[in-house]
Amino acid sequence: MHNIAIYPGTFDPATNGHLDIIERAVPLFAQVIVAVTCDSSKPTLFSIQDRIQMIKDVTQNYSNVRVEEFSGLLVDYACKKEANVIIRGLRAVSDFEHEFQMASLNKRLNPKIETLFMMTHEDNFFLSSSAIKEIAALGGSLAGFVPNIIEERIKQRLSN
Amino acid sequence: MHNIAIYPGTFDPATNGHLDIIERAVPLFAQVIVAVTCDSSKPTLFSIQDRIQMIKDVTQNYSNVRVEEFSGLLVDYACKKEANVIIRGLRAVSDFEHEFQMASLNKRLNPKIETLFMMTHEDNFFLSSSAIKEIAALGGSLAGFVPNIIEERIKQRLSN
Amino acid sequence: MHNIAIYPGTFDPATNGHLDIIERAVPLFAQVIVAVTCDSSKPTLFSIQDRIQMIKDVTQNYSNVRVEEFSGLLVDYACKKEANVIIRGLRAVSDFEHEFQMASLNKRLNPKIETLFMMTHEDNFFLSSSAIKEIAALGGSLAGFVPNIIEERIKQRLSN
Amino acid sequence: MHNIAIYPGTFDPATNGHLDIIERAVPLFAQVIVAVTCDSSKPTLFSIQDRIQMIKDVTQNYSNVRVEEFSGLLVDYACKKEANVIIRGLRAVSDFEHEFQMASLNKRLNPKIETLFMMTHEDNFFLSSSAIKEIAALGGSLAGFVPNIIEERIKQRLSN
Amino acid sequence: MHNIAIYPGTFDPATNGHLDIIERAVPLFAQVIVAVTCDSSKPTLFSIQDRIQMIKDVTQNYSNVRVEEFSGLLVDYACKKEANVIIRGLRAVSDFEHEFQMASLNKRLNPKIETLFMMTHEDNFFLSSSAIKEIAALGGSLAGFVPNIIEERIKQRLSN
Amino acid sequence: MHNIAIYPGTFDPATNGHLDIIERAVPLFAQVIVAVTCDSSKPTLFSIQDRIQMIKDVTQNYSNVRVEEFSGLLVDYACKKEANVIIRGLRAVSDFEHEFQMASLNKRLNPKIETLFMMTHEDNFFLSSSAIKEIAALGGSLAGFVPNIIEERIKQRLSN
Repeated sequence: MHNIAIYPGTFDPATNGHLDIIERAVPLFAQVIVAVTCDSSKPTLFSIQDRIQMIKDVTQNYSNVRVEEFSGLLVDYACKKEANVIIRGLRAVSDFEHEFQMASLNKRLNPKIETLFMMTHEDNFFLSSSAIKEIAALGGSLAGFVPNIIEERIKQRLSN
Repeated sequence: MHNIAIYPGTFDPATNGHLDIIERAVPLFAQVIVAVTCDSSKPTLFSIQDRIQMIKDVTQNYSNVRVEEFSGLLVDYACKKEANVIIRGLRAVSDFEHEFQMASLNKRLNPKIETLFMMTHEDNFFLSSSAIKEIAALGGSLAGFVPNIIEERIKQRLSN
Repeated sequence: MHNIAIYPGTFDPATNGHLDIIERAVPLFAQVIVAVTCDSSKPTLFSIQDRIQMIKDVTQNYSNVRVEEFSGLLVDYACKKEANVIIRGLRAVSDFEHEFQMASLNKRLNPKIETLFMMTHEDNFFLSSSAIKEIAALGGSLAGFVPNIIEERIKQRLSN
Repeated sequence: MHNIAIYPGTFDPATNGHLDIIERAVPLFAQVIVAVTCDSSKPTLFSIQDRIQMIKDVTQNYSNVRVEEFSGLLVDYACKKEANVIIRGLRAVSDFEHEFQMASLNKRLNPKIETLFMMTHEDNFFLSSSAIKEIAALGGSLAGFVPNIIEERIKQRLSN
Repeated sequence: MHNIAIYPGTFDPATNGHLDIIERAVPLFAQVIVAVTCDSSKPTLFSIQDRIQMIKDVTQNYSNVRVEEFSGLLVDYACKKEANVIIRGLRAVSDFEHEFQMASLNKRLNPKIETLFMMTHEDNFFLSSSAIKEIAALGGSLAGFVPNIIEERIKQRLSN
Repeated sequence: MHNIAIYPGTFDPATNGHLDIIERAVPLFAQVIVAVTCDSSKPTLFSIQDRIQMIKDVTQNYSNVRVEEFSGLLVDYACKKEANVIIRGLRAVSDFEHEFQMASLNKRLNPKIETLFMMTHEDNFFLSSSAIKEIAALGGSLAGFVPNIIEERIKQRLSN
């Protein structure tokens, strides 16, 4: 029962919704690897280094959380890390379908790795990294949507 | 990391879809408790004893699976069993919504218990206990839908 | 290319939505068999004879439409009729999921029979036999929802 | 701009989700008529009088809220009350489809009456009258799900 | 009861679906402000001035409709206009989810502003500005999809 | 009953999911025209000639399958080919909605052409051309997702 879980994503930037999933995964797994992809199909607001650093900053109290860059096939990365679980958060029906397809594909590519889903807390149901960036760009407050430290970095980044 | 998981349901009867979820949960948790409800809102084809026995028969090779009767609130039962995880299988969008509501309610009733979802294997996507009973009642074959031992008991039960 | 199609349902009673599907199927298939089930899991307002007769009355101008009673497994009935196609109308997402499961099950039970779906015309999107019976019971007009001849029979039936 | 809105339902019993919709409708309409149906297709836990009284108790501070019994077609009732708006809460995709069909039907039956939808507050996303009754029957706490006064009446009613 | 409603969108160009929503909102609100965004994330076929002018042309008979350019956060714009309602049309499940997220975010940003949804008339269910532009570009007729005056301008614009 | 069916798409490249639909359509129609669009709104990995050739290669055993390039409005192309049926595969709820809108639009543009839907086989439920290209780009195996001959061409194309 030494389960190692990977929580993959772009995290551009991490929101309270992502952090809630991480915090709920912490007591369930021996190790939680937050895997930040550098293969994003869309341009990102933050560099891969910044995205990793922000998550490190807000998860530093959890001794079994690691934050890493990854590229390539997720199942190959999971193998290399000896992880047996992929964690994904579900918010909505459109999430559900995309996630179903990804989980099925990954199961075909490597049947030993199991995808487990957590329902996003209802307070974070409407949060997405892209909505947050749009609100910030239009001058709105991000209080309650991201940790303070991340709100500050978004403002810095957008003022450059 | 001594996770105990509860997999609750009516299991009237268990299908290959249920068994797939159990088999995938076995390596992830110290113990998997299949909790068969005796509070079903609808009349069942099989008695609670029969439903439990059938699952015991088909899971006897897994040393960390227990099959039990339960009644009352699921989160109270989980507490009593010192379980920290509820497992649910997801097949479809309508499942998703119902499950989302149940998981949110259970989280409110006891925030220490986490619901984890697994996507049903695509081969079992279309399986449901009620579809199986309907096919059997109309004389169709259940090969590939339930284990042989369960197919026989359905036929016995329907011929009474 | 001698395709025989079965359009199965409870038809309690047939609505303009059902008739639209039949009329659009008529030019596509050598024969369209409207198969009225007598195995309905819920009590019906009309007897199986009445349900068949009403569809016969409103489809009598189509020489390749037959209306029949059926019971048992749909794929067995299709085999007996040498039909190779099942037709189903789709209105909504919840239809979609149920229909997907039925089509998958039927394909497993007999891979030679193909299920083809037609989208319900948007004018009939909101129609269902149960909505129509409820409106009629509450005294509302059914104009535009069912053919006149069927509206009259619903009124007769409800006034008994 | 003298809009009169009807908020119809079974309210067996009213939940915090229903009350949230009422409170948000209060400032938008000259009058909000909570219309409690006595035509429920399922047996109710509370009598029509009890369901009305509970809503009266928890909405007594709003001078423009009325609570009434209704039966028959909703659009006919709206006409009689000179209401031009029907209010409905939306929680989920399955709600959405059913509501879409009801709104389309009502628009056909009387095009002068407009259905307006409000999204249920995310805190109440998972609430339903039936879930609440089930939790209460199994001995769970309803704190945060219904007003105190309604929780007490549910307990009284279930202990009889 | 002096409700001011904002109907925001890109309107590139307005379709019969948009006009149906505007016409149904007219009798319900003291003022309906059609707010045309100049912050579209995608390139538009028409300039902001053209998009505004086309809606003005087809709504000129309604004395309580205003058409305006807006930029920035919608809730800030609503505040400045002393509007208390945002109107949105719903067509489909995917609309529903996106709209649910937007309405929840806006409620968090300013709880005094209420989002009300109208179901798109079933005749316009399948209409979207992008579908219309694609059909026009491929030489199809837009009769029944947009007002004549807008069809002409699309053709002019595409022939440049 | 001389039905000619068009199966339109981008096919960049064709997957086992597409081939399954073609193979199931072959016995139902006098002719199946696979219509490969050269109007794709997104850049394609393969040229229109390559996309056509790959489908020809894997369908050469079916005498009633033709593979053609098409551009412009689908219903106009169907007319020119004297086709009376458009075939589409459905995988998921999001497919369903988009397809519903396309089928409704096409019915408006030409009511004589019927769109028929087939449910994608559950083994191919999770397949999409874009997922396949992503997996190949990341070095994963495509066995079971596309025919061997197409896997080879994807590798060639990506190694250029």
